[in-house]
Amino acid sequence: MRYAIKGLGLSAALAAACLAGAAGTATAAPAHPEGLYAPSALVLTVGKGDDPATATVERAVVLRCSPAPGGDHPAPERACAELRSAGGDFASLVEAESDRVCPMVWEPVTVTADGTWDGRRVSYAHTFPNACVMADRAGAVFSF
Amino acid sequence: MRYAIKGLGLSAALAAACLAGAAGTATAAPAHPEGLYAPSALVLTVGKGDDPATATVERAVVLRCSPAPGGDHPAPERACAELRSAGGDFASLVEAESDRVCPMVWEPVTVTADGTWDGRRVSYAHTFPNACVMADRAGAVFSF
Repeated sequence: MRYAIKGLGLSAALAAACLAGAAGTATAAPAHPEGLYAPSALVLTVGKGDDPATATVERAVVLRCSPAPGGDHPAPERACAELRSAGGDFASLVEAESDRVCPMVWEPVTVTADGTWDGRRVSYAHTFPNACVMADRAGAVFSF
Repeated sequence: MRYAIKGLGLSAALAAACLAGAAGTATAAPAHPEGLYAPSALVLTVGKGDDPATATVERAVVLRCSPAPGGDHPAPERACAELRSAGGDFASLVEAESDRVCPMVWEPVTVTADGTWDGRRVSYAHTFPNACVMADRAGAVFSF
């Protein structure tokens, strides 16, 4: 039986569940106990192009922030601290501006962050006009 | 091959950077050279609920498949082999059916995969009606 209908078939499923229960079928329990912390694990990428869906990913690193900073990100402690102080809001991380002078060249670089932060799913993308602006604004999280 | 060509283009990029530097502009060069392989790094999660956006993530693992299988996934070699033989198509991984008898109980479990596969961004989610069906169909990739 396919479960493609998922939510739509809820009442039917519940009815079926009663029948199944009456028939004495064993109920499935999760194979692993739940963790004591909300997982935070992210895949961060940098790629050329201005469309996150088609940009060619050039570099990808893994950043873990719970239970402890880790992954192959070059500075997980700093990156996790930045993210934590921003409450996991990636947009606020790339907003900061400095006095650095960057050429006004359109060679777009797109950064993405996908995974889970504090137990919630994250899917973030931001396009910088060029690598200089990215280096200026991306902070520790996207510096790899 | 595409990536090899890019690597070769690096010297041209550096030359351009020198010229731009001579012109007095602060041109940014990428901080790191491009990799010679397309990155494959994924955050895989399992959570309760039928909506990937709101499901509470219970477990999250990292799976890396290039340059070598790794991450904190319990069986990265098998998971990467499965994904590779499926051409990175997560949907085809969860389609397989077996003879296992599962109760028809609606206790939805949602699995997600986010990150990058072969240099392309991946965002996949699938809801199983209950943990038994998940254990039956999820294969090595989502067995953690």
